Amino acid sequence: MRKVFQAELHQVGEELIQIATLVREALARAKDALLDADIQLAEEVISNDARIDFLQNDLDERSIDILALQSPVASDLRMIVGALRMSASLERAGDLARHLAQAVRLRYPDPVIPEPLVETFTRMFDLDLQIVDRVIQVLQTRDLSLADDIYALKGEVNALHQSVFDALAAPTWDCSVPTAVDVTLCSRYLERIGDHGVSVTRKVSYLVTGDWVPASSDRPTGHGHVGRDGGE
Amino acid sequence: MRKVFQAELHQVGEELIQIATLVREALARAKDALLDADIQLAEEVISNDARIDFLQNDLDERSIDILALQSPVASDLRMIVGALRMSASLERAGDLARHLAQAVRLRYPDPVIPEPLVETFTRMFDLDLQIVDRVIQVLQTRDLSLADDIYALKGEVNALHQSVFDALAAPTWDCSVPTAVDVTLCSRYLERIGDHGVSVTRKVSYLVTGDWVPASSDRPTGHGHVGRDGGE
Repeated sequence: MRKVFQAELHQVGEELIQIATLVREALARAKDALLDADIQLAEEVISNDARIDFLQNDLDERSIDILALQSPVASDLRMIVGALRMSASLERAGDLARHLAQAVRLRYPDPVIPEPLVETFTRMFDLDLQIVDRVIQVLQTRDLSLADDIYALKGEVNALHQSVFDALAAPTWDCSVPTAVDVTLCSRYLERIGDHGVSVTRKVSYLVTGDWVPASSDRPTGHGHVGRDGGE
Repeated sequence: MRKVFQAELHQVGEELIQIATLVREALARAKDALLDADIQLAEEVISNDARIDFLQNDLDERSIDILALQSPVASDLRMIVGALRMSASLERAGDLARHLAQAVRLRYPDPVIPEPLVETFTRMFDLDLQIVDRVIQVLQTRDLSLADDIYALKGEVNALHQSVFDALAAPTWDCSVPTAVDVTLCSRYLERIGDHGVSVTRKVSYLVTGDWVPASSDRPTGHGHVGRDGGE
């Protein structure tokens, strides 16, 4: 019985990694779709999101079955509850990658991100991809030495998110209002994807150490209503 | 034992209602803060958010204790897992009300929402407040006849969210870019608050009927990356 249970727990962990890997793939494709106005790639991201939703649902049902049939306690119980939460966070990150792809579809064949901000968005995508890479490693190895890296990368995402608003407001740039709307939403999506990476990391950290890292540590001070989520 | 267990389940339900009530209060205050540039109210919303976070944490710990000590199965198990998810959704809605208040603080003493959009935002707030009122009723009574109301109200929020972008893009209005950024984010927050209301309603509906309402039913067709969350 115990052996079956451990195999089931392992399976839940594997499925989390699988979902995170699909999120990584969606994000990489959303990056190219957004920066190259590639409608084909955008459509792929949009249609593949259903797979992430399916896997999340599957993982959740599996977790509930484990709770019902095995009645785990202590750290095993927290691991299952943690998996339910992490899957929700990863699924949302997948939704946000889909939103980025939907912005491409909405504006095609025009680019969503104007030339002066392409470098900033490239960097934000790369940081989010690095965050998701490390989240996958943390899920695989539970090596928490990566956690500080992830929080630092999120700090860089926050700074770039803020810099996007500063660039939009700069008197030297006559940005159109619809462009400002698109840029604002896309920057927000990228910032939230980073938040979900941090959120999953905190949950693994809590499972391993029992200590909860307060969400306030990565809260920026600039644009007050920006980047202060940290949570789900 | 069974009696104690039912009392504990009831307590979890009560705490969910308590959190939803605090979210309602935060949203009502955020409305007045945003539309009257009332910094005092904004500060209240920001500082009171810690109370919602605390209650969510408390509810989660209580739920995990119930899982560990009572090993519920079937509908009781789903009720506890559902409560964990609903508390996460409500906590996020509270965060979004805080973001609205933070926008007030950032721009004070200037108003965040320009005059031509005040009526639209008033209406969006009122719709979200109606959604949260009905969510509280659903949590209290499990009366699912309210669910369609809630989905319809969310449809109206989506339409207004879309109309905000149309207004911003109208050639007749020379809106500044920083204003467009603020308006975009605030509209997005209000749209997401509605999503969380829908999400909690779907979870209650699922607990009561066992049928899952697909998230696609309230997806708008306009601005592709707008209002398509529906989930967490």
